[in-house]
Amino acid sequence: MPKKSRVKIEGERALRVGLAGLGTVGQGVVQILQAESDLIAARAGRAIKIDAVSANNRRKKRAVSISSYRWFDDPLAMATDPDLDIIVEVIGGADGIARDLAYAALAAGKSFVTANKALLAHEGLELARLAERQNKSLAFEASVCGGIPIIKTVREGLSANSIGRLYGILNGTCNYILTEMRETGRDFALVLREAQEKGYAEADPSFDIDGIDTAHKLAILASLAFNTPINSRAIYCEGIRRIKALDIAFADELGFRIKLLGIASRSTKGVEVRVHPCMVARDTGIAHVNGVNNAVVAEGAYSGPIMLQGRGAGRDPTASAIVADLIDIASGRTGLAFGLPAKELTPAKITPMQKHYGRYYLRLMVQDRPGVIASVSAILRDGKISIESLVQHGRAQGEEAVPIVIVTHEAEELAMTQALQKIEKLRTILAKPHLIRIENAS
Amino acid sequence: MPKKSRVKIEGERALRVGLAGLGTVGQGVVQILQAESDLIAARAGRAIKIDAVSANNRRKKRAVSISSYRWFDDPLAMATDPDLDIIVEVIGGADGIARDLAYAALAAGKSFVTANKALLAHEGLELARLAERQNKSLAFEASVCGGIPIIKTVREGLSANSIGRLYGILNGTCNYILTEMRETGRDFALVLREAQEKGYAEADPSFDIDGIDTAHKLAILASLAFNTPINSRAIYCEGIRRIKALDIAFADELGFRIKLLGIASRSTKGVEVRVHPCMVARDTGIAHVNGVNNAVVAEGAYSGPIMLQGRGAGRDPTASAIVADLIDIASGRTGLAFGLPAKELTPAKITPMQKHYGRYYLRLMVQDRPGVIASVSAILRDGKISIESLVQHGRAQGEEAVPIVIVTHEAEELAMTQALQKIEKLRTILAKPHLIRIENAS
Repeated sequence: MPKKSRVKIEGERALRVGLAGLGTVGQGVVQILQAESDLIAARAGRAIKIDAVSANNRRKKRAVSISSYRWFDDPLAMATDPDLDIIVEVIGGADGIARDLAYAALAAGKSFVTANKALLAHEGLELARLAERQNKSLAFEASVCGGIPIIKTVREGLSANSIGRLYGILNGTCNYILTEMRETGRDFALVLREAQEKGYAEADPSFDIDGIDTAHKLAILASLAFNTPINSRAIYCEGIRRIKALDIAFADELGFRIKLLGIASRSTKGVEVRVHPCMVARDTGIAHVNGVNNAVVAEGAYSGPIMLQGRGAGRDPTASAIVADLIDIASGRTGLAFGLPAKELTPAKITPMQKHYGRYYLRLMVQDRPGVIASVSAILRDGKISIESLVQHGRAQGEEAVPIVIVTHEAEELAMTQALQKIEKLRTILAKPHLIRIENAS
Repeated sequence: MPKKSRVKIEGERALRVGLAGLGTVGQGVVQILQAESDLIAARAGRAIKIDAVSANNRRKKRAVSISSYRWFDDPLAMATDPDLDIIVEVIGGADGIARDLAYAALAAGKSFVTANKALLAHEGLELARLAERQNKSLAFEASVCGGIPIIKTVREGLSANSIGRLYGILNGTCNYILTEMRETGRDFALVLREAQEKGYAEADPSFDIDGIDTAHKLAILASLAFNTPINSRAIYCEGIRRIKALDIAFADELGFRIKLLGIASRSTKGVEVRVHPCMVARDTGIAHVNGVNNAVVAEGAYSGPIMLQGRGAGRDPTASAIVADLIDIASGRTGLAFGLPAKELTPAKITPMQKHYGRYYLRLMVQDRPGVIASVSAILRDGKISIESLVQHGRAQGEEAVPIVIVTHEAEELAMTQALQKIEKLRTILAKPHLIRIENAS
């Protein structure tokens, strides 16, 4: 068994941290390390001390005092400082300084802790390789779902299991918007504007609401779950812009909730990785995860489905995850970034979205004339897509469009796409059909 | 930083396991180690091999083949076998052979992995001390909530946090019974009998339904969360025998679900540890954990509330947790059993139940006569207990008892107990009042 002293650690010297980035999360890390130094030293077996910091503006007013730390204008200079054991990066961004810092820190023989999901999603494997060569740690618990220890759970807690499917609500902004839409009955644009005013959504919200952020996190989780490198660019990605109040109301009526999920599943055919709005049954655990909360379900072959939920973002939860990584490293409770050597992560075949197989919710805006349903259902029948239920309410006045909702049995995405193309061309169809996939959640 | 090779592990020899106990869970461990040997070797960095087994009856028919393993009639002899690195104990019981085996294995310089919650609840600290002296691991993820990695989450995932409160559904049998009662409207005795027939409850169900099993698990979780030794005998413990279909129906009406929770909380006054049925608001996550599932919420100072849920028992989930512990140990990703040295676990003052402060549900069976409510509410008023709501339905025929339900604002348990003693003596009260505590879940 690996030799390691776990008892006589009181005499060990402090783990010396260089912190790059003093934004919200960076200040949160400073605050926890200052306020909880005794607790942390007891649990880590030695002190964890910030020794140096680097950010854009030294004189900026901050909620925490950084006057006792060495200052670096250049984080890359900090990365090679011989008095530091470890670099914490909370700058963000997949390119530029954060990326350079990661390589520089590991190359200089320092462990590297980051909250940077984009960086991990794009360069995780390369960084893991470098960390292995250097026999140092690459830790990134904070990069996915803030304070929820999902990385540790998938990599270590479920290590006896091959995981068949992993899915989750990985973006708090989207979940907040969808929750608000349901609770107030208002439409997407209105709720988004309000979320922006409250600071729950960015001025340019596309990174969140178009599913890109979710795809980054899913790439990391899928790589861990399946022991295969997944690039976020290979993930099918569809956001929540097209969800209407009408869809939310129909979902309620049909016994569903609409959630933006990141889903990774594995079968003999390959790996499916996709981000899109889903209908999930109302009586499932994930349907009850509301507001800015995140949740992830991992389906282990032996463990069965395990769900974790909690706050997926914010200063304190994210800082909590970063400090937990520091404590693991300080106490020697470390391992390989992706749970096994990077060279053993074997690429998997990504199943194209057109081969996805599942149930569908289909909303059509139609002219209320005889024969519409007959035409639509004939097209579905020709595509070998069978209808599970069909809902139409009321009647339109004159030329007004009325919604028809169809729930299908399981069908292949390709067949659905082809049927939709035909349906869209019918003269009685007044708007682009809206399709939402139904996911069998647990 | 502790020296440890994490890269050149391919050459390391197998971790050799001695397995004590070949019941359901023991066979599950054999099955996973046999079926997933490649996956496990990749994740552990070396093979994990069963080398020896011990059980009562060598010739018994089993679902797995044990013919290639050395057989020990005496597990204590196996514990000192020089060719074994680690002993896995799935015999069960806090006294007798399981206990002797734990001490013998650690004393012989072997790591010890167990699913034995009773043993941990009673002897965890002593065993942790011995493991530290021997510089070996004591691992017990399987002892609480089966396949849910809650031990790891509390000890490692949330290590940056002091935890204010931890609570959960820790017993699947009770949760199954309460769920069935709610879904079918049937009474406790009937549902228990059915659970016994289905194998969800033991012939002697008291260990589960009286809350003892929950108290064992809570003792372990509270010790980890608060870094303090908690003996399960110090835990206030009340089971689910007195819950009636009537209470379940009233809970529904009032917007609650009834769950048996184990709850540990910490304040400046001390530590509260209690097991009892709770009313939890219907819109909380824990209210939706149904059937045999388990769930735990840990409220970290920075992480916020984190909930884990999944299958809390059964062969495969429990074996999944045991093998995860083995992988952690094989790969050197280990630490101290309770997250810090046993000598640093400082005893905390346990707040007596009479000082508990919370809201209460109170069901009275009364004679339907004028003045009953006046008498009861006068007693509550004199005890400085204020009423939040009061429900009475219909009227009784003649002398028949009718239920009155009162929900109180926050009050001290002592005041409630004293008020109940007075209420019970009223001539119009026809049965022992039934009190269920309301817990503010998140």
